[in-house]
Amino acid sequence: MIKTDILIIGAGPTGLFTVFEAGLLKLKTHLIDALPQPGGQCSEIYPKKPIYDIPAFPEILAGDLVKNLMQQIQPFEPGFTLGERAETLDKLDDGSFVVTTNKGTKHHAPVVVIAGGLGSFEPRKPLIPNLVDFEDKGVAYIIKDPEVYRDKKVVISGGGDSALDWAIFLSDVAAEVSLVHRRNEFRGALDSVEKAADLAKLGKIKLFTEAEVVKLYGDDNLEAVVVKHNDEAKGETYVEADNFIPLFGLSPKLGPIGDWGLEIEKNAIKVNNAYDYQTNIPGVYAIGDVNTYPGKLKLILSGFHEAAVMCQSAYQLINPGKRYVMKYTTVGGVEGFDGSKKEAKKEVVQSILA
Amino acid sequence: MIKTDILIIGAGPTGLFTVFEAGLLKLKTHLIDALPQPGGQCSEIYPKKPIYDIPAFPEILAGDLVKNLMQQIQPFEPGFTLGERAETLDKLDDGSFVVTTNKGTKHHAPVVVIAGGLGSFEPRKPLIPNLVDFEDKGVAYIIKDPEVYRDKKVVISGGGDSALDWAIFLSDVAAEVSLVHRRNEFRGALDSVEKAADLAKLGKIKLFTEAEVVKLYGDDNLEAVVVKHNDEAKGETYVEADNFIPLFGLSPKLGPIGDWGLEIEKNAIKVNNAYDYQTNIPGVYAIGDVNTYPGKLKLILSGFHEAAVMCQSAYQLINPGKRYVMKYTTVGGVEGFDGSKKEAKKEVVQSILA
Repeated sequence: MIKTDILIIGAGPTGLFTVFEAGLLKLKTHLIDALPQPGGQCSEIYPKKPIYDIPAFPEILAGDLVKNLMQQIQPFEPGFTLGERAETLDKLDDGSFVVTTNKGTKHHAPVVVIAGGLGSFEPRKPLIPNLVDFEDKGVAYIIKDPEVYRDKKVVISGGGDSALDWAIFLSDVAAEVSLVHRRNEFRGALDSVEKAADLAKLGKIKLFTEAEVVKLYGDDNLEAVVVKHNDEAKGETYVEADNFIPLFGLSPKLGPIGDWGLEIEKNAIKVNNAYDYQTNIPGVYAIGDVNTYPGKLKLILSGFHEAAVMCQSAYQLINPGKRYVMKYTTVGGVEGFDGSKKEAKKEVVQSILA
Repeated sequence: MIKTDILIIGAGPTGLFTVFEAGLLKLKTHLIDALPQPGGQCSEIYPKKPIYDIPAFPEILAGDLVKNLMQQIQPFEPGFTLGERAETLDKLDDGSFVVTTNKGTKHHAPVVVIAGGLGSFEPRKPLIPNLVDFEDKGVAYIIKDPEVYRDKKVVISGGGDSALDWAIFLSDVAAEVSLVHRRNEFRGALDSVEKAADLAKLGKIKLFTEAEVVKLYGDDNLEAVVVKHNDEAKGETYVEADNFIPLFGLSPKLGPIGDWGLEIEKNAIKVNNAYDYQTNIPGVYAIGDVNTYPGKLKLILSGFHEAAVMCQSAYQLINPGKRYVMKYTTVGGVEGFDGSKKEAKKEVVQSILA
């Protein structure tokens, strides 16, 4: 059983910053995340994307935001249970909680804070009966490494920018690229649409519009897909394929947390107010994009603020009656659990007192 | 008359970041600050001091925080009235406001937000009848440039770190340094106290404890101070002095804002709730360290969050009935009023959609 003071569910930016705010209050933290690495969406979905509204960063890549946060919290030695999904929440007689993951790892803490963002992102899957049979055997919903597709026969379906851009990109990498879209119009950027059309004319992309993939074939690994045309006169086309990549976007899901008895409103967890971000279960807080309250803004910045406020409340819960006098880090420095100590150089502290 | 959408009183970090959040909503801003430069305390009092609790900055100097914020808001072309103190607030018949400074500059806006921090910092002054007569003529409350005191006769009073450390520092610069403290014990760090005692033994600091400065002499500029000893048997000592520097700390003052009819609690402005940080005067908001509400944390981070929330509410006030759909800067980029546009490179946007 892993024991900690504040158990944080979700290791995105808000969850990570909670480690820091808890650490200033001498509270230990442990994070659980379904993803294999910390950072949430910022690491998994858009590490290279610039963010412009983090205060005092005119521009920062999402991946760098995570890197900086990891460096900032490092002195507080957070524990991590990664690649496991928080599955159940049990309240013990003493008011503390046990959270168990899908792999059976158990965590015990007096305070649980859900910093689950928009939930786990799951790909929107087309309704093809035997689709799941070929997952990891030719079927994928996210392109992580394009080199996987070198010299392969690839079928992509979808009508948005990602389907277009990956079809264009892979036309130089794969042996053969087919792009299947159920309409004739694409939702992508104009120049992407034109480029895909040009490549189709050159025979570098096989374009199937007003059509969709309806069946998959293969002994063990995928070997072919069946493309059905809307126009019945055209019937079906059999397309050899090592890979089928439906790119219909990602859909956020609250997941098992939705069954924990928390008050839910529009796929978000209601918190009592903006006073301490506690849920209807005392001792369980929700911060960041996962929560909702009047005036809620889904900004990373707001998650950071909520983390700071929530930790003050958790401190009172964990240390009833004990009065905490907030010390500014500029004045008191930061003392890590690892024995590290950051503080202003003495001559600087003095000069500001003058 | 200066006209703007949101008039921001206080150009500290919270006031500066308000420019950014307002800019995202296409609202223009103008800032008033009594200090001659933007940045508030961070620029004026401790530009070289590291701050450790700004999210994603393991450490940042206060001065750099301000520099970064100035860069971040630059595309939104804020106006500045610096070196003037907001003196009066008048509500016009149409519900908009006119704010006039101590120098008579008038500003007109539908929304006013007070981001005044802890107010203006004023030095705590000892009760010496003719003290003010010698201000800038030998009497100073802040040491900005120690070189001013080279080869001068300097009397410092106070018993804290700043009095101790400046006495120690100036003992190498000034012709003569006296340190006057009304007790025998100093409140400073142990090694500073020891060092001052050692320098006193060497005759490099004249130490007067259980004593205080009670009178100043001089024709135009300061020429001497009278040190009165607690022990009546010792009487008074006449000390020649070019400079007298009482270092009793700075005391924040709300100033004229305290007379604007706002609900005040413990030197802070009460806001209705954490929903939009509006005060008891509709259209007037208070954010950052200057406000108070249940659970309030006086963190720069919280001021940033409050700025974002407050701007959403101001948008509704300025554009009644108009619905604003928040766009993430990561998706929509940032369009400056100066014609600049920041956005993710297309290939990056695309890759994250996959």
